[in-house]
Amino acid sequence: MERVNLAEKADLFSEHWKPKVIAEVNGHQVKFVKFLGEFVWHHHEAEDELFLVVRGRFRMDFRNRSVWLEQGELIVVPRGIEHRPVAEEEVSVLLFEPGSTLNTGNVRNAFTTETLERL
Amino acid sequence: MERVNLAEKADLFSEHWKPKVIAEVNGHQVKFVKFLGEFVWHHHEAEDELFLVVRGRFRMDFRNRSVWLEQGELIVVPRGIEHRPVAEEEVSVLLFEPGSTLNTGNVRNAFTTETLERL
Repeated sequence: MERVNLAEKADLFSEHWKPKVIAEVNGHQVKFVKFLGEFVWHHHEAEDELFLVVRGRFRMDFRNRSVWLEQGELIVVPRGIEHRPVAEEEVSVLLFEPGSTLNTGNVRNAFTTETLERL
Repeated sequence: MERVNLAEKADLFSEHWKPKVIAEVNGHQVKFVKFLGEFVWHHHEAEDELFLVVRGRFRMDFRNRSVWLEQGELIVVPRGIEHRPVAEEEVSVLLFEPGSTLNTGNVRNAFTTETLERL
């Protein structure tokens, strides 16, 4: 039952696209991740995924449209929906999703992070 | 799949201690709530509860200690642990918890909100 300070956690890592687990709640994990550049198109078969922008901004691409997300904004991407985060500048994002969620969903490539570090 | 802006949501209500549902993800709800004053001591039998401070600060009392939470800080209160939020000034807080979670947990009193409004 420790306090987690997001700004302090953000200072602990610099790599992009590798979510870090910072808290767990009812089998879900709160993950902290930095995006920079263009991720891979993917979807998650069985998991909805929540993105909350802590610092910066990014664009979530869907196949038929894009949504810009600014600091203090969140979006839920339902299971099955193809998406691709794109960050023109570095952005820090909180994810809320089941512990079983693979960052690249149905795709495995250089972005795939099998085992998540805990901060 | 709409963008949710927390500052805009905060402007939509003024009452305290009545969580509003702003998003759903895998059977969990993201709730937005304003605290002011002292809540009731309670615990949740079966649910962990996450609190993330969006604006302001508050104190989480446990039976043997207290934790101050500032903007950009979160805490997970595990199931079974008695707690009481106390806010000397108004604070806006995001909650992540199962949709079934009652705000007053094992207690029912004037603070209890049976049916949550959606924003």
